[in-house]
Amino acid sequence: MPSYLHKLLKMRMEGRTHISSSELADYMSIEWIVVRRDIALTGIKGQRRVGYNINELIQYIREYIGWTKPMTATLIGAGALGSAILGHDDFRRYGLQIESVFDCDTDKIGKEIHGHEIYDIATIRTRLKINLPKIAVLCVSNSSAQLIADQLVSLGIKFIWNFASTCLKVPPGVVVQREVLAGGLAMLGVKIKN
Amino acid sequence: MPSYLHKLLKMRMEGRTHISSSELADYMSIEWIVVRRDIALTGIKGQRRVGYNINELIQYIREYIGWTKPMTATLIGAGALGSAILGHDDFRRYGLQIESVFDCDTDKIGKEIHGHEIYDIATIRTRLKINLPKIAVLCVSNSSAQLIADQLVSLGIKFIWNFASTCLKVPPGVVVQREVLAGGLAMLGVKIKN
Repeated sequence: MPSYLHKLLKMRMEGRTHISSSELADYMSIEWIVVRRDIALTGIKGQRRVGYNINELIQYIREYIGWTKPMTATLIGAGALGSAILGHDDFRRYGLQIESVFDCDTDKIGKEIHGHEIYDIATIRTRLKINLPKIAVLCVSNSSAQLIADQLVSLGIKFIWNFASTCLKVPPGVVVQREVLAGGLAMLGVKIKN
Repeated sequence: MPSYLHKLLKMRMEGRTHISSSELADYMSIEWIVVRRDIALTGIKGQRRVGYNINELIQYIREYIGWTKPMTATLIGAGALGSAILGHDDFRRYGLQIESVFDCDTDKIGKEIHGHEIYDIATIRTRLKINLPKIAVLCVSNSSAQLIADQLVSLGIKFIWNFASTCLKVPPGVVVQREVLAGGLAMLGVKIKN
């Protein structure tokens, strides 16, 4: 869905108003029938010969994946990966609204990265208590990920986007979305081997 | 597979020799039967009551995903995301061997990031011709991804790990592994909505 959205937003900027599923399929290098099935999930109806109205399709996709209103977030760990996320225009465009950034590195605390001041992780409890965000983005080391997740859960965070390699243990009702960057490398490894 | 491997390498470091599928399932918070099915793919046989030999299982998984020998690579785009990949210990441990790093930013060229000198993108042709790596890791902007991919393909690169949001067009025989970071955000969006 984010890939369709990326293409549609670009086309809209270029002044296009309609798109066919075969054009999207061609862009993604996937089967036409897969695109049709994906788009059908959003509930939109296309028009014969004209295809989908791009504005409408953007709205349907956004609604389907819950990207219609800003998703407030805190980001923990302002290393290279954390900085990459803070500077990622797509995330901002999609509604990820990072309201606070924490790190334990005294060289980083007080500095700014992509317009975000880095706060001392020791102040996380007091800061988040005042204004609890929806999502916590975890870009910390594997060894500290569980400890920080426990703290976030105790503060009331229900959604964790975890970039550490550790599998987090969380109580029922808390959702962890794991980002396994090495997964792509594994897929490549299999393809190289074959 | 990378998640199993991460856990197994950690356990081996802690001196453990055997593991059961239920212990792996518990760690990953997934069903025991899923772990069994995944591990069966590698071809290893477990022993009743004893479980899997950790050393052996590591080897089987590595063989299954083609991580038994170093995968040479070039990385294009030494921004925050590129830097995060250069500094990612897991990737190095899994065999990703980044031999060269290119960027077009004159502030970066000639500097070092995580022990890698940044080369001028203008020299990519001459440098890669001498020593063609297996994989090209693309951490460039969406607008320049296709242009650079074309150049890499013309040099003979067959495997591209693409972190840009653009869907690349490549000739048959060239494999693109796309990393859609926004995919995780979409999954989270759906879960928050529901």
